[in-house]
Amino acid sequence: MSSLSFEIVANDENGYARAGRMQLPHGLVETPVFMPVGTQATVKSLTPADLTDDIQASIILGNTYHLMLRPGADLVEKMGGLHKFMAWNRPILTDSGGFQVWSLGELRKIEAHGVRFRSHIDGREVFLGPKESMDIQRKLGSDIVMAFDECTPYPATFKEANDSMQLSMRWASECREHLPVNDTQALFGIVQGGMYPELRLESLKAISEIDFEGIAIGGLSVGEPKEEMMAMMDALAPHLPKEKPHYVMGVGTPDDLIEGIDRGIDMFDCVMPTRNARNGTLFTDDGKINIKNLKHAEDKRPIMESCNCYTCKNFSRAYLRHLYMAKEILSSRLNTLHNLHYYCDLMSRARNALVEGNWPEFRDNFLQRYRSEA
Amino acid sequence: MSSLSFEIVANDENGYARAGRMQLPHGLVETPVFMPVGTQATVKSLTPADLTDDIQASIILGNTYHLMLRPGADLVEKMGGLHKFMAWNRPILTDSGGFQVWSLGELRKIEAHGVRFRSHIDGREVFLGPKESMDIQRKLGSDIVMAFDECTPYPATFKEANDSMQLSMRWASECREHLPVNDTQALFGIVQGGMYPELRLESLKAISEIDFEGIAIGGLSVGEPKEEMMAMMDALAPHLPKEKPHYVMGVGTPDDLIEGIDRGIDMFDCVMPTRNARNGTLFTDDGKINIKNLKHAEDKRPIMESCNCYTCKNFSRAYLRHLYMAKEILSSRLNTLHNLHYYCDLMSRARNALVEGNWPEFRDNFLQRYRSEA
Repeated sequence: MSSLSFEIVANDENGYARAGRMQLPHGLVETPVFMPVGTQATVKSLTPADLTDDIQASIILGNTYHLMLRPGADLVEKMGGLHKFMAWNRPILTDSGGFQVWSLGELRKIEAHGVRFRSHIDGREVFLGPKESMDIQRKLGSDIVMAFDECTPYPATFKEANDSMQLSMRWASECREHLPVNDTQALFGIVQGGMYPELRLESLKAISEIDFEGIAIGGLSVGEPKEEMMAMMDALAPHLPKEKPHYVMGVGTPDDLIEGIDRGIDMFDCVMPTRNARNGTLFTDDGKINIKNLKHAEDKRPIMESCNCYTCKNFSRAYLRHLYMAKEILSSRLNTLHNLHYYCDLMSRARNALVEGNWPEFRDNFLQRYRSEA
Repeated sequence: MSSLSFEIVANDENGYARAGRMQLPHGLVETPVFMPVGTQATVKSLTPADLTDDIQASIILGNTYHLMLRPGADLVEKMGGLHKFMAWNRPILTDSGGFQVWSLGELRKIEAHGVRFRSHIDGREVFLGPKESMDIQRKLGSDIVMAFDECTPYPATFKEANDSMQLSMRWASECREHLPVNDTQALFGIVQGGMYPELRLESLKAISEIDFEGIAIGGLSVGEPKEEMMAMMDALAPHLPKEKPHYVMGVGTPDDLIEGIDRGIDMFDCVMPTRNARNGTLFTDDGKINIKNLKHAEDKRPIMESCNCYTCKNFSRAYLRHLYMAKEILSSRLNTLHNLHYYCDLMSRARNALVEGNWPEFRDNFLQRYRSEA
């Protein structure tokens, strides 16, 4: 029996947007959902209590590549799995390590059964392929395991994109063989194909024919113009199997998320809210603000008046600017708290709009306001 | 009318230790008390909620030197004062800036009415004396203002220590003149005199003759052997005016605090729990542990079994070691939370022992256990 059940609770009648409920071993995830990134068994600067009580995150993401190198999958398993190790008792999705290994560039060599690379921590040689990735993610104990794939570079010729996609499709089958349907971990396949709609559709067909519990779209947000990214989602939207959750990986800005929902996407992850927070960039409905800016020095207002996060309820822009300028750790923490609250709350607002049947208005109003200032 | 009222609720019959209640404009402080250091309008890595809900800190310390340079006392005043700026609604004690300026060494020049120095941030010349320090602390709006003094270096000749102490005593009078008794801010005088008991007693007499709301002992923990520090407290203990709170500045380790309480001290501050936390050194009743150590790599136990802090209730030493090795921000935060909880809880346990009349046993048991492992 599968460990994942998914039901759709509301639809945009004239489009692909939908609201759903995804039941996983560690809890319920209401979609659309944003998953905060917890690379090294921690969402940087935050505790599990921050994520549940303030941000109301229902699922977070862990990175196989980072965790396999430090502290190591065996150690995490010995400590009772990733949930217990980091004291997070809600669902976790782990990526496959494919994307990070691919990002190593010159330091990795792709072979038939996986990728050989050197650890960025101590230089030792490591091999990671479909079988190894499944084994590691099994040890981590995540609720959702991602298939091991190759991310197609941008730009790529048709042949390069095709070869890469075909390799990922072979690996996708191998992943499912190594991790058959079971009642503790779900497995998502990943659609590749670069910026070629016909390859994307061929890849979606291949992934759809395998018994994956969810469908992910990979290889986006890798340097391409936003129009190309949206064109790929447009091409796939009518063909995504409606009964399964849809996850676009590593995307994106708040307006990207709204555009993604409009194209049938249920799940998102991105380092943007966390990384930008540490650089002093904060998200609001009126676009981004840079807290470093001198104009905030004596500003008594919160980041965003309507925000209910701990940061906005207690601190002024002036104080947040002071913390940033003084390089205080609390700066990263308060900024991260706000940005993740903003992202998760935006998904909740989108969900409400879908349930209440006013998605088109919500979408249009949001995009107009957000983009008029950004 | 004074802004501070202090009453003693329990005494060690055979010594100087006592438990008290100090009422300040922003709330009640039960003594003995440890004051977490919030240098730049933040206790590094923590929120006010952490300090009240988990650590149960009843008063924190702010640094005049740092705040006057960044963001500046005028800005803090414009933002409604330090309490409002940093969203801390319990009492604050601010130091005078004297110690930090003294620490600048070659970069400062002592004059009759204060000290001329260059900012470590932008190099601009700044002058700070008794008058300036009172003005700045008035703008910050702390509950307890510290007199501006000169910290006597260690070692110092009798003449050097005497000259320095006499200067501090002149400045102490000037501080009280610039900040007369009022109902919003209390002022503490500071005893100096280096490592010369006769100078210490002369200084205490001078300070006691001025109408200060509390008595501080400065110039300790500046490099001298622990025995010399204790000898100075021993010399002063019988002569400290019993009706006023006693504060030893910048001290110290957990056993120093217990030794200090035994010598009649009510208030402590020190960067040790916060700074050490960021370096991976954690305090327990069995002495310090270094979380970096390989022996903690697979240790499922918390830092200290009997500790009720969020860190100890949720995370293993193995996880804390991982966070430290991975240079995660959460490492500083969880370690700081534990160390400050440990310090504040130790004061609460000491207070209970005093109230329950078993101070000598508590003191001896603690010192024996703590020192057997440290």
